[in-house]
Amino acid sequence: MKAYLSAQSEKIEKTLKKVLPAENHYPKSICQAVRYSVFAGGKRLRPILSLAAAEAAELNEEPLLPFASALELIHTYTLIHDDLPALDNDNLRRGKPTNHTVYGEATAILAGDALQTIAFELFATKQHKDISAENQLHALKELANCIGIDGTIGGQVVDIESEKAENPSVATLEYIHTHKTGALLLYAVKLPALLYGIEGEKQNALTEYGKAIGLAFQVVDDILDITGNSEALGKTAGKDINSSKLTYPALHGLEASKEMANSLLQQALSALKPFGKKGERLGKIAHFVINRHF
Amino acid sequence: MKAYLSAQSEKIEKTLKKVLPAENHYPKSICQAVRYSVFAGGKRLRPILSLAAAEAAELNEEPLLPFASALELIHTYTLIHDDLPALDNDNLRRGKPTNHTVYGEATAILAGDALQTIAFELFATKQHKDISAENQLHALKELANCIGIDGTIGGQVVDIESEKAENPSVATLEYIHTHKTGALLLYAVKLPALLYGIEGEKQNALTEYGKAIGLAFQVVDDILDITGNSEALGKTAGKDINSSKLTYPALHGLEASKEMANSLLQQALSALKPFGKKGERLGKIAHFVINRHF
Repeated sequence: MKAYLSAQSEKIEKTLKKVLPAENHYPKSICQAVRYSVFAGGKRLRPILSLAAAEAAELNEEPLLPFASALELIHTYTLIHDDLPALDNDNLRRGKPTNHTVYGEATAILAGDALQTIAFELFATKQHKDISAENQLHALKELANCIGIDGTIGGQVVDIESEKAENPSVATLEYIHTHKTGALLLYAVKLPALLYGIEGEKQNALTEYGKAIGLAFQVVDDILDITGNSEALGKTAGKDINSSKLTYPALHGLEASKEMANSLLQQALSALKPFGKKGERLGKIAHFVINRHF
Repeated sequence: MKAYLSAQSEKIEKTLKKVLPAENHYPKSICQAVRYSVFAGGKRLRPILSLAAAEAAELNEEPLLPFASALELIHTYTLIHDDLPALDNDNLRRGKPTNHTVYGEATAILAGDALQTIAFELFATKQHKDISAENQLHALKELANCIGIDGTIGGQVVDIESEKAENPSVATLEYIHTHKTGALLLYAVKLPALLYGIEGEKQNALTEYGKAIGLAFQVVDDILDITGNSEALGKTAGKDINSSKLTYPALHGLEASKEMANSLLQQALSALKPFGKKGERLGKIAHFVINRHF
């Protein structure tokens, strides 16, 4: 599994290196800022999920690489903006100084903007004859929806506002988690089906799996913040609890949160049944997400 | 002409109102922030240029409305981010307090992000049978290119960096103006040709016109900053010269800048010849841009 993850990750790195402007592309500062955060040691979970979903659904992996990599760009853009002083004000990300700490706030804001733009440019570039323009356009529309006000951005807004709220509710917490992190993870899993126009049982299975894994990821993230594992977390642990942020353990307790993570793992695994042996990879990734040692 | 501009502007307003999330859409704060800046009294120059270009090339205007309106969303996103304290730190825009002044920096950053996303979502939505998925995808890719590191964002980066430069060059000034403002204005003019797949003489004419008008717009912007007309400018006049920003008048003097604006107007008008009478509207808009009384 470790070899698999590193092999998949390498394909993504290669694609990302190719699609991003070079370090010495004019204007250099923004190109360096963009590459700095994209190559700051991410686990490439979203692209890897897309490729594994393609394997499960027996779809050609190669044409998916630019799209899967674009999801990493979207993810990086949201991290850069979330870390800004006006938002989460975080100095450490993936074990390295955050973008604005190194390049300044102005460049960090524009680097995030640029990453969103580059991701959409990749999604709009004709990549392969097996992917029709109609499907590509549809997948792009779904991506925009998933990262907009009814997705990632909405989740981030409610997250920020919940910090000031006196009695944050369970419903608010669920909104944050399904939108802020869950939406893009779910999308990553659905991406191959969208691009190849796969519907029916396989699409439903990917959706079920993606929802479970998306929520599980955030529950585990919350747990790691408390158990203090900065390495597995890739950012400063203890930050949520110190800022009295709304989290699963804060609302339900640590033990109940761990149980929830395990129950979501079972849900994810059971969703994979229609794929038989072909779904094993996605199953192993689910285990990794819940036990987060990669 | 005034009646024409207000009629066109009304169509755009109507489309914008329809495509943006309602004020009470959850989470409300971001929806309100987004609508605040979009409806803060913009002249809708970019969408109006797209519609007038369609008239010149004898193309159906109705299916273009969502795309043309999306350009206004992109324009508004860049304004919100440019006005942020970390960038231009402007408190006044279109005669009203800037987005972050009203909603705070965090929401303003996310509102800009959301507007970029919504624009791409509109561009990826099937709008009309006469616009093929291939052309729509191609137009979207060109838009992403035009507002990315080789376009709007690159122009903004160089603009910020030029403020600190000791000897900013004419080449730098031209890079800033063709990229920061010119690229999207040119794109607005080319948009109908891209979506309907029009090539050849008409496409070339629109490109020539768009380039001239795009550069002229910025030269006039620089002139208005010096002559102190905040109303025509829609933002605080005198700001560029006070921050010793690189501008046309600063490099070439006020008179030479006025001559340049007029020569660009002639270039724009002469590019319209292939359209005959159908190009009159674009011609009048060029006059308006250069004399900026609308």
